[in-house]
Amino acid sequence: MVCKYKVTVFGLKIVVKTSANNRCAMTNLAVNRLPTSAQTEGRLLAEQDARDQIAFSAAHAENYHEPVLVVSRQRLRINAQRFIAAMPRVRPHFAVKANPDPEILGIFQQEGTCFEVASIAEIDAMLELGTNMQTVFYSNPIKSPASIKHAAANDIVWYCVDTPEEVEKIAAIKPDAKLYLRIEVSNEGSSWPLAGKFGASPQGVEAIIEISKKLDMQLCGVTFHVGSQCTNINNWVEGIRAANNIFTHLSENGFSPELLNLGGGYPLQFTGQEPSIEAIAAVINHELDAVPEHIQVMAEPGRYLVGSAGCLITQVVGIATRDSARWIYLDAGVYGGLMELSQNFPATMVSQHTGEAGVWTLAGPTCDSIDVLGDHRLPVNTQAEDIIYMPNLGAYCTTCASDFNGFPTPKMQLVD
Amino acid sequence: MVCKYKVTVFGLKIVVKTSANNRCAMTNLAVNRLPTSAQTEGRLLAEQDARDQIAFSAAHAENYHEPVLVVSRQRLRINAQRFIAAMPRVRPHFAVKANPDPEILGIFQQEGTCFEVASIAEIDAMLELGTNMQTVFYSNPIKSPASIKHAAANDIVWYCVDTPEEVEKIAAIKPDAKLYLRIEVSNEGSSWPLAGKFGASPQGVEAIIEISKKLDMQLCGVTFHVGSQCTNINNWVEGIRAANNIFTHLSENGFSPELLNLGGGYPLQFTGQEPSIEAIAAVINHELDAVPEHIQVMAEPGRYLVGSAGCLITQVVGIATRDSARWIYLDAGVYGGLMELSQNFPATMVSQHTGEAGVWTLAGPTCDSIDVLGDHRLPVNTQAEDIIYMPNLGAYCTTCASDFNGFPTPKMQLVD
Repeated sequence: MVCKYKVTVFGLKIVVKTSANNRCAMTNLAVNRLPTSAQTEGRLLAEQDARDQIAFSAAHAENYHEPVLVVSRQRLRINAQRFIAAMPRVRPHFAVKANPDPEILGIFQQEGTCFEVASIAEIDAMLELGTNMQTVFYSNPIKSPASIKHAAANDIVWYCVDTPEEVEKIAAIKPDAKLYLRIEVSNEGSSWPLAGKFGASPQGVEAIIEISKKLDMQLCGVTFHVGSQCTNINNWVEGIRAANNIFTHLSENGFSPELLNLGGGYPLQFTGQEPSIEAIAAVINHELDAVPEHIQVMAEPGRYLVGSAGCLITQVVGIATRDSARWIYLDAGVYGGLMELSQNFPATMVSQHTGEAGVWTLAGPTCDSIDVLGDHRLPVNTQAEDIIYMPNLGAYCTTCASDFNGFPTPKMQLVD
Repeated sequence: MVCKYKVTVFGLKIVVKTSANNRCAMTNLAVNRLPTSAQTEGRLLAEQDARDQIAFSAAHAENYHEPVLVVSRQRLRINAQRFIAAMPRVRPHFAVKANPDPEILGIFQQEGTCFEVASIAEIDAMLELGTNMQTVFYSNPIKSPASIKHAAANDIVWYCVDTPEEVEKIAAIKPDAKLYLRIEVSNEGSSWPLAGKFGASPQGVEAIIEISKKLDMQLCGVTFHVGSQCTNINNWVEGIRAANNIFTHLSENGFSPELLNLGGGYPLQFTGQEPSIEAIAAVINHELDAVPEHIQVMAEPGRYLVGSAGCLITQVVGIATRDSARWIYLDAGVYGGLMELSQNFPATMVSQHTGEAGVWTLAGPTCDSIDVLGDHRLPVNTQAEDIIYMPNLGAYCTTCASDFNGFPTPKMQLVD
């Protein structure tokens, strides 16, 4: 039986179709609405997008018993198509870590996306997918000898390096590897800066060039990562310019540069204030005019491709009044897929309840004190068993979850 | 074939027995040794304990291919026996979240330990164990209505509360429940303070008393938690004194107090400077003289019972020179069971290599920048594929791990 029901989100009514056999009506689905005066066009678009995500998810809130991440196949396709259309010269390689579900990988492959991997299990996922292994990029800058052997045995050609030790390690196992050098760039304006753990400094670049010459390794690409959920377009501009300078330097040292990898960091629209992929693309495409034509250009979108395709449905375990503070405890938390929220990552939360919004401290369900998700606006009349929707969680949610303290990790459900 | 081989740890030689069929020799197992002049008796004991843990684990480092947590059955028994012997009046309830492995739960049950739980899955673990459900305490202060129903249907009698809302929730489902009130106490000197998320303030206590009277609920116990890995014995003293005052207050309000729950927080010996369980017990036992005889006393040790029974074996993925900084990348990190280390939790690390120790920045294997474990002393000649032992990780390791980015979670292996 296909049912239709109406839900009201961000003050607008939407119709949801469901094939559920039982209860198929949801009422009063509404939101902590932002004041109209402050709404820009971007914000309206972000709100509409959140509504759309809730619309394709809402049927899975019926007969709720544990967290579920609802992923739209159609949106996966649209996101890939939009990325490719925005940057015709840039070949997207999906960052498998963002969501390694086999069906999701298959959909991206159908849309013409390639892949980047970071571990033996992710290499195995590529073999299972039946993808051309020569198009798979091994982008983890620090790889175990066993995993390099596994990659080499399975025809992976391209390997990231950002230290001299890594060049030596790869040289000993795969002397004909093609290496791309990860350089450090500004992470200013990204929600999750990556600087420190990865990326060669100018001094490090020299050390890598020296060892590559000595070991006769092909150092023929440059990559950078502007940081996750980056809203500062200038970081890509700086990265491309720095890479172009390094191409010249590599050529002067006898190497033949052939690859520019723009990395990841393309942001989702949480507030609508983030630049769109088209706005970022306009700047990147312009900068790429200065990159020699024979250089192939790729990127490693993860969150951008899968994030807005997934909406997490959670439930309120209980509310708590602690003197003047009010707490909401959810059945998903730091351990159950929301680790990023504890790091002040942007989030949108939409309650099933209408009503005036207030500030709540959110926590996960475990007995651990670090399982706290920060302060968020939700209806003041929130109660135990209310459903809370969290759009834009298709990436880095199920994949980072553990069932600590016996709370189930979110199950994934593909729709459309 | 049973083999014997010698390993040298903390400068001492130990003999390891293994039944491995193949290579059964390990050489040069050694350590970042602390200077002799600074070694106290406690430190020597902690070092000996680390050596013992490595001795029962070392056979599992042979033919290594992924992280393994080796747990000694004998140590589980000894830890339970030692806790019970130190505090004869205190009934231990193992905090299942610390390590819910069914065999571990069974061993503790055989040693006379009861249990505390926090979720439906942990209740189900109790049913599977076949334990007397009336001895199971539901110590999560915020419980979903569904989980309270599940607990009530399975004869759980005791429920923790620290907010008025929780009293109302339990009253609606299990009106004959026995409630124990969690109060806030000092967490000073604990490695992982729990204050904020849980524990009623004096004002909160009054609100809980009022609602319990109104709903005719049995508010008949008091509990507190001094914070995880607590080294400040005075916190237990303050907790017991505060509980005693609340017993009087409950009696004045018509309740019949019958339970004191001392919670968890009993520390492991990472450095040897932590108070021993016997030192803590001496103070607690003395304080308990002031607690009326008819009050049953329990505690909720988790890490203490299982922590020192488990030693994690990891391997170096690679080392990296980043200008003047030196990094070690391990195959276990924040996502793979070492989340506590990123929170500055104490840790002991012992390399397979001998040699002068230096300061390294440790990181996990994933491409995530938060997957960094802080600075630690390890041999300056550390190389890719070296084995690193981490004693005292029987608790909160495997249970908090996810396979993010395709890196396998540590497998558990019980020995003895």
